[in-house]
Amino acid sequence: VSFSVTILGSSGALPALGRYPTSQYIQIGKHHFLIDAGEGAQVQLSRFGGNIHRLDAIFISHLHGDHYLGLMGLLFSMHLNKRQNDLHLYAFKGLREIILLQLKYSKSVLGYTIHFHELKENSTEIVFENDTLTVETIPLLHKIPCNGFLFREKPKPKRINKDKLAANMLIQHIVQLKQGLDVFAESGEILYKNEVFTLPPHPSRTYAFCSDTAYQESMCQQIEGVDLLYHESTFTSEDQVKAIETKHSTAREAALIAKKAGVKKLIIGHFSARYHSPEVLLPEARQTFTETYLAIEGETFHISE
Amino acid sequence: VSFSVTILGSSGALPALGRYPTSQYIQIGKHHFLIDAGEGAQVQLSRFGGNIHRLDAIFISHLHGDHYLGLMGLLFSMHLNKRQNDLHLYAFKGLREIILLQLKYSKSVLGYTIHFHELKENSTEIVFENDTLTVETIPLLHKIPCNGFLFREKPKPKRINKDKLAANMLIQHIVQLKQGLDVFAESGEILYKNEVFTLPPHPSRTYAFCSDTAYQESMCQQIEGVDLLYHESTFTSEDQVKAIETKHSTAREAALIAKKAGVKKLIIGHFSARYHSPEVLLPEARQTFTETYLAIEGETFHISE
Repeated sequence: VSFSVTILGSSGALPALGRYPTSQYIQIGKHHFLIDAGEGAQVQLSRFGGNIHRLDAIFISHLHGDHYLGLMGLLFSMHLNKRQNDLHLYAFKGLREIILLQLKYSKSVLGYTIHFHELKENSTEIVFENDTLTVETIPLLHKIPCNGFLFREKPKPKRINKDKLAANMLIQHIVQLKQGLDVFAESGEILYKNEVFTLPPHPSRTYAFCSDTAYQESMCQQIEGVDLLYHESTFTSEDQVKAIETKHSTAREAALIAKKAGVKKLIIGHFSARYHSPEVLLPEARQTFTETYLAIEGETFHISE
Repeated sequence: VSFSVTILGSSGALPALGRYPTSQYIQIGKHHFLIDAGEGAQVQLSRFGGNIHRLDAIFISHLHGDHYLGLMGLLFSMHLNKRQNDLHLYAFKGLREIILLQLKYSKSVLGYTIHFHELKENSTEIVFENDTLTVETIPLLHKIPCNGFLFREKPKPKRINKDKLAANMLIQHIVQLKQGLDVFAESGEILYKNEVFTLPPHPSRTYAFCSDTAYQESMCQQIEGVDLLYHESTFTSEDQVKAIETKHSTAREAALIAKKAGVKKLIIGHFSARYHSPEVLLPEARQTFTETYLAIEGETFHISE
C-alpha cells in the first residue's frame, strides 16, 4: 500500500517566482488528502498527477492567506467538473464563513456537499478516522490559531507466511491467524499455531506536518519517531531575530525538533522569498539532522511499508 | 506617452494548464491599473514586469471566482512588501465584505488604505478620473452583476509645431497656443496666429474591456470606434448553445460586436478549457473581423499616440 507526500508548494508568505505557497497532496492507499491550499494549489495538483475528484478531505493548518487562498478556486473547479461525492474540510473557525460568503456573492450552489469540521486550539484530538488511518491535530505556536496534522496508520493485521500455507486451510483459519489467534480443531486439538504461520504486521506508518510554527519542543513527544516530518524552516539562523518576531522557525530549529523527536526523515519548507534558492537552508539543517530534504514543488516522498 | 494592455491571464472559469484566469495590467503614462485578478494574478504581474506598488486602482468586473480570487493574495503581498500608498478598488457589492472577513480571520491590519468603490448595475457611469483619463463602466449581460470598463484619455492640448518656434517666444505664449488661443501683443496686434504655430492634439485613446458577457449589441454605441476592444470569446459557434446557456459569447459574436462598433482592433479571450489551444477560436473571429488577436499570457498590446 502506497503512502506518499507530494509537495505542491513550499514558499513562505510572499510568493517567489516559480515557487508556490504551501500545499501538499497526501496519498495513502486509496485515500487522497490535501494539507493546505495556497494560491495555485489546484493547478499544482493537476500538474503533479492529482485528481481533485478523489480528494476525501482537506486539512487547513491556519487562516493565513498563503495556506488557504487556493481553496476557493479548487472548490469552484470541483463543482464545474461535476464532483458529486462529499468533501470534508478541517479548519479553524472562519473558513466556513469565508467560503459561504463567496458562494453567496457568486450565486453558486455547489453540486456536492462540504462537511465543515472546526478545529480546536491548543489541543490534540483525532479529527479524522477511516478504515486504515487516523489524523490528529498537533498544536503549533504561531500568530493566529494553527495546527499541524499527524497522519497515522492504524495497527495492521498479522501477515500470513505464504511459505507455510497448506492447501487444505480454510478461509476462516486464515482470518483467525491474521487476527493473531491459534486455530483449533473441533476436537480441541491445536491445528495451526499462530507464530508458525504468521509474520508480524507491517509497521503503521506516520507522517507529521508542522507549519507554520515557532520553535516548540512540546511537539516532540507527540511526533516521536514518525517516519516523515515536514517542519517549516522559513529562515536561516542568520535571521533568527526575524524568526522569533514572526513566529517562524530556522533550519537549525526544524532540525533540532527532528533530532529530539527521533524522526526518521525531515522535510523542510515554507522558505522565505528572501532566499533566491532554498538550497541555502539545507546545510544548516543537515548539520544537526543529516536526513533532511528540501520541499521542492513536484517532489514526492514515499514511506515504504 | 505609453498606453498598453498586458494579458496576465486569459482562460475561462476552469484553469487550463499553463493558462491563468482573467487579469490584465494596464499602463497609461505614469498610471498603472489592474482589471480583474484571477488566481495567480500577482505572480503573473511580477513575471511580466508589473510592480504591485505602482497600481493606482484595481477594477473587478464581477464576483465569479476566476475574476477575483487572486486579489486577496495580491493585497496581502502589498502589505508584506510595505506598500503605503492608498489603493482604490472598484467592484460590485460583496468584495469589500469578502476582503474584510479574510483580514479579520488572519488578524491582519494592512499598512495601507483601501478605498472601496461600489459599482452600480445596469448603468454607465464614470467611476474613476485623474488628470489624464476617465474610466467608465459598461453594463454587461452575465449571470451575476457584471461591468466592463472603458478607459478613455481626456482631450489633449494642441501641440506646438516645433518647426515654427521662434527664439523670442515667451513661455506664456506657448501656454496660450497650446490652449488653442491666438497670442496678441500689448498693442492688440496679433503676434502668433494659433493655426500657424500649432498642430492638432494627439487623439484621445480608448480601451474597452468587456468580460464576461453574452452577446449584447447595446454596448456597441458606448464602445463605438475604440482603439482596442477586449471582448470575451469563451466558445466557438459549434458551442453556441453552451454560450447562450452560460451567458458567454462565441468568437463570432465577439467579432460581430467589434464590427458593429467599428473598433480598430479586437482581442478575444476567456477561452474555455475545452479547447486545447485558443488558436481554434481565431479563424472564426477573423472571418467577421480581420483585426482580431488572441489574448495570450504575457502579450502586450500597445496603442500608439
